[in-house]
Amino acid sequence: MGQDQSSVFDLAAVAAASNGGNNDPLLPPARFIGDPQKPSRMPYTKYVAYDKQVPFDYPDRTWPGKRLQRAPRWCSVDLRDGNQALVNPMDSERKLRFWNLLVSMGFKEIEVGFPSASETDFDFIRMLIERELIPDDVTIVVLTQCREHLIRRTYEALKGAKRAVVHFYNSVSVLQREVVFRKNKEEIKKLATDAAELCKRLEGEAKGIDLYYEYSPESFTGTEPEYAVEVCNAVIGVIKPTPEHKMIINLPATVEMTTPNVFADEVEYVSNNLDDRDSVVLSLHPHNDEGMGVAATELAVLAGADRVEGCLLGNGERTGNVDLVTLGLNMLTQGIDPQLDLSNVPEIRKTVEYCNQIKISERHPYAGNFVFTAFSGSHQDAIKKGLEARQVAADRAGADLDKFVWLVPYLPIDPKDIGRTYEAIIRVNSQSGKGGMAYLLKTNHNLDLPKRLQVEFDKVVQRYADETKKEVKDEDIWRLFKDEYLPVEQSGMTAAGKIVGDTHDASLAPWGRLKLLKVAVSSGEDGSDTVLKARVLDRGVNVGVDEERVREVSGVGNGPIAAFLNAIANLGIEASVMDYVEHTMSVGTDAMAASYVECQVGEDAESQIIWGVGIDSSITTSALKAIISAINRSER
Amino acid sequence: MGQDQSSVFDLAAVAAASNGGNNDPLLPPARFIGDPQKPSRMPYTKYVAYDKQVPFDYPDRTWPGKRLQRAPRWCSVDLRDGNQALVNPMDSERKLRFWNLLVSMGFKEIEVGFPSASETDFDFIRMLIERELIPDDVTIVVLTQCREHLIRRTYEALKGAKRAVVHFYNSVSVLQREVVFRKNKEEIKKLATDAAELCKRLEGEAKGIDLYYEYSPESFTGTEPEYAVEVCNAVIGVIKPTPEHKMIINLPATVEMTTPNVFADEVEYVSNNLDDRDSVVLSLHPHNDEGMGVAATELAVLAGADRVEGCLLGNGERTGNVDLVTLGLNMLTQGIDPQLDLSNVPEIRKTVEYCNQIKISERHPYAGNFVFTAFSGSHQDAIKKGLEARQVAADRAGADLDKFVWLVPYLPIDPKDIGRTYEAIIRVNSQSGKGGMAYLLKTNHNLDLPKRLQVEFDKVVQRYADETKKEVKDEDIWRLFKDEYLPVEQSGMTAAGKIVGDTHDASLAPWGRLKLLKVAVSSGEDGSDTVLKARVLDRGVNVGVDEERVREVSGVGNGPIAAFLNAIANLGIEASVMDYVEHTMSVGTDAMAASYVECQVGEDAESQIIWGVGIDSSITTSALKAIISAINRSER
Repeated sequence: MGQDQSSVFDLAAVAAASNGGNNDPLLPPARFIGDPQKPSRMPYTKYVAYDKQVPFDYPDRTWPGKRLQRAPRWCSVDLRDGNQALVNPMDSERKLRFWNLLVSMGFKEIEVGFPSASETDFDFIRMLIERELIPDDVTIVVLTQCREHLIRRTYEALKGAKRAVVHFYNSVSVLQREVVFRKNKEEIKKLATDAAELCKRLEGEAKGIDLYYEYSPESFTGTEPEYAVEVCNAVIGVIKPTPEHKMIINLPATVEMTTPNVFADEVEYVSNNLDDRDSVVLSLHPHNDEGMGVAATELAVLAGADRVEGCLLGNGERTGNVDLVTLGLNMLTQGIDPQLDLSNVPEIRKTVEYCNQIKISERHPYAGNFVFTAFSGSHQDAIKKGLEARQVAADRAGADLDKFVWLVPYLPIDPKDIGRTYEAIIRVNSQSGKGGMAYLLKTNHNLDLPKRLQVEFDKVVQRYADETKKEVKDEDIWRLFKDEYLPVEQSGMTAAGKIVGDTHDASLAPWGRLKLLKVAVSSGEDGSDTVLKARVLDRGVNVGVDEERVREVSGVGNGPIAAFLNAIANLGIEASVMDYVEHTMSVGTDAMAASYVECQVGEDAESQIIWGVGIDSSITTSALKAIISAINRSER
Repeated sequence: MGQDQSSVFDLAAVAAASNGGNNDPLLPPARFIGDPQKPSRMPYTKYVAYDKQVPFDYPDRTWPGKRLQRAPRWCSVDLRDGNQALVNPMDSERKLRFWNLLVSMGFKEIEVGFPSASETDFDFIRMLIERELIPDDVTIVVLTQCREHLIRRTYEALKGAKRAVVHFYNSVSVLQREVVFRKNKEEIKKLATDAAELCKRLEGEAKGIDLYYEYSPESFTGTEPEYAVEVCNAVIGVIKPTPEHKMIINLPATVEMTTPNVFADEVEYVSNNLDDRDSVVLSLHPHNDEGMGVAATELAVLAGADRVEGCLLGNGERTGNVDLVTLGLNMLTQGIDPQLDLSNVPEIRKTVEYCNQIKISERHPYAGNFVFTAFSGSHQDAIKKGLEARQVAADRAGADLDKFVWLVPYLPIDPKDIGRTYEAIIRVNSQSGKGGMAYLLKTNHNLDLPKRLQVEFDKVVQRYADETKKEVKDEDIWRLFKDEYLPVEQSGMTAAGKIVGDTHDASLAPWGRLKLLKVAVSSGEDGSDTVLKARVLDRGVNVGVDEERVREVSGVGNGPIAAFLNAIANLGIEASVMDYVEHTMSVGTDAMAASYVECQVGEDAESQIIWGVGIDSSITTSALKAIISAINRSER
């Protein structure tokens, strides 16, 4: 088995048994008010304090007195580490969308996959190279284990690339050496240096590629720092980087195992003990198991790290990789250029959530729905006073408010600087943007809009907001929604088109072409077709009261919707239903139902995809009204 | 205006303009590979580095070399700070449920509200006291601003309590002194000491209460530490705590403003400079604006803090208060008894999400759905080997595996210790529990179950899991769902009742009492009543094939659902609809619709609330089938 004599379990068990981990009974009782806390039934004696697993101290540390001075070199691993942690890994459309986002944000290093382990990754890398999608100033990184056939396959994936980083890794932790690899320290180190030597030999196959290397002593946080340095220096000795042609040494907090001061100590120690430090880019790859990934990164940057690997909004294995958006905006709050374009966080979030198919929390730093909302009255008051005082100070200084120094209570960042709005700050129980609109419609009008309908209607609201340059209140949103999706109220006619302020232009067209007057639906034995007869008021394509006429139409289908679509085909209307959602608006048999229908209306070349909304006490009628709403909207 | 001469804005503008915050252009270029990162368009010059806002250094720090040794005193502020940050603040039912959870977890201090600012809070506190819901070993904390009428009202809320902490606060930060209060340092300090004096005077009104005090220099992180100490010492001088009857000094990171090493320095400085330190419990109240709240707390505990205020799973204003669950379980991973019962994290999460009406992220430490799932093959392999090696080591030691030392790659904690399962660890693309069931039904069967239906069906799944003691696979879930909610398949009869394994007991009843054979629905002019005629197979209350008979029923209502409910009243069935949701299961006119109906079935005293599900190509028929499903289920 070739391993050191005593098992990690034996050593750990002794440590745990000796004093119950770090649960020191010799400490004086805590200073309490009222009764003391009681011992719990949590089995703490089976866990071993980190400093007993990896004994290490570094009194020479200098990082605690330092402050952040500039952005590190960023490397996104969304397309690799992030992607491998998804329930539904990205398809190529999603990957390319994510890639485009990263490039547009200003990332110069992007880890694009593990091509030897995944055909999808391999194909994606080939597509990037062959379709020349990699800008000249962006470097791709590809990951591989330290195994010969995998390394060879990695080089195949890179053929034709202009520049690339080959990132090889092996796990060097105490635990993995024993239980996974069953090798001793020398044997583990040899895995790394053998891989480095193979890489050097294969450089002949990488003709024309400006090639760099990255080595990760994986599970660094479970490794004796002295041994990690020994392995890294052995790899550096093989690769022989120079100050002009550096290599990356990347320290993964594969699992976050303790407080970040310890990680910072370890990073400072490594930084001070690496060979050829000027030829090395010292990199971090933090995870977030104990919820301290962001802090561990920032402290380790103080400790000497040059580069950070992470994912947008903290996606990644288990609790995620460190969140690069939070790190970048933390830099900004310190007056530091993050060297990433984070000016549209809602758009970043939208793309990330779409690609990962995972939602972030409402309280996610900078990006969550609630993080610029003050529900407390005293906070609202202080923010209001702070915004006013800032305005006064900017006026006095003759400064542009948008560029004037930002100091506002409870708001560490100007929401505008990251593409968010003030609205949510000063209003209670509402949020800005699409979420706020959807929230208000749900809370005040019992309408629970499907996501894609929210996107569609949000454009209407945004257009109105841009035109009026006023805060959009609940009553505005409801009026816009009614005018856009629901039929004219009984009294008088409401404009279907553009609305400015409270002015409705009565000369504009009435609500739309069709109105449902009467409907009868019958179905036969279970599974047989539904027959529908409808009486419809049809104002014709060119709307005019003179041309109104009542039409009787009928259709057959496997349900009322299909039958109705067949029926209105008699009026020359081609429509099909893409999506359909319906819900009650309240409890009881006299409740109203709301239906939302996404329709494709019109012939192929000229067809449009558009939503309609119907409200009626009958679930059938509300669905048919929703179809009419979509058709009427399509003809406006 | 009584403030110091120069405005914070002036000073900050000078600092920001001088070198662009901390974005030091004099630093040597970073060690790059490929092209350098480019300046972004982020307006970093409007932000002022924290050390320029609050200049402070503390070279005497000792915390970086320390390690966690024991749990701090915990205080939950969920019912106050957490609650005030909710879109829908908790009603009294939710508050009591949260209170019960906190007590059951072992919290000995619970901040229960801001009774002078909120009638709801006042009433809740009165209820806790009057109904004697506060265990003898639990101390309640009530918050108040330093204003006379609010403090007086606070004492009214406490009448009859056995023991309580009156927690008074005022904001002391540089910014708030100037822009919110427009007072100088002496005036701000006097607000605090005046409040302390008033509290002492009011003690006469608090006869019989074992009364303690807590003072918070709010916005501590925006305050010169020297001045914060000055104010705290002035308050201590008024309150005159003793080692036997301490007071709490609580340092709020009201807004998290920089890296946690700075916060730890400040806390260690305060701890070393407070008067009567032995009579003071030094407390923290961290928020999470920069995503480092957990780390800031742990480092500040190393720096000397005795007590931590926070919320379960990190609820609270903006990005939330610090997460007490994560802090407690981080302690556990270091072999420290958290002195909180965290043995059922899923249950804690369920209650917290119910009460707050906010979901946590899939990647939330310890509690998120994905944090024990390894999607990567190499991680899965290492976990498998690690679990095996641990088993071997435990066997060799003759130890109980559940209590044996936990060392497994990629899993910092034994999922079992916090009420979670191994299932998710070793399976790809599926989750355990309700989320997993709902996910599988949605992904594989296009059924998007409403939340309360998920809860109902989850009990069926859990019962099955408990009975079979086997892993519940997708096909099991689908079979259970069909058997519970959908009619018997055409071929043969499926048991409606209990299913064990793959055995269906054909002697059990067929699917249920009613079957819809035919339906015709007609509605008149818009808004008039719907008439429904249905042919129904009725097997009677006591199910038996002999008693089957075909019934023709009709009903009138404002839609098909109402008309159908009226129609089946002819069969002696009383039912009403509480909630109703419907959606398409795919695109196109030949798509099927799924309807979910929550029905109240039966007369008042014996009625039950139960869900039904219907699937049909017709949206009308699917809704009626869903009602029949609910009725059939109610009679089983």
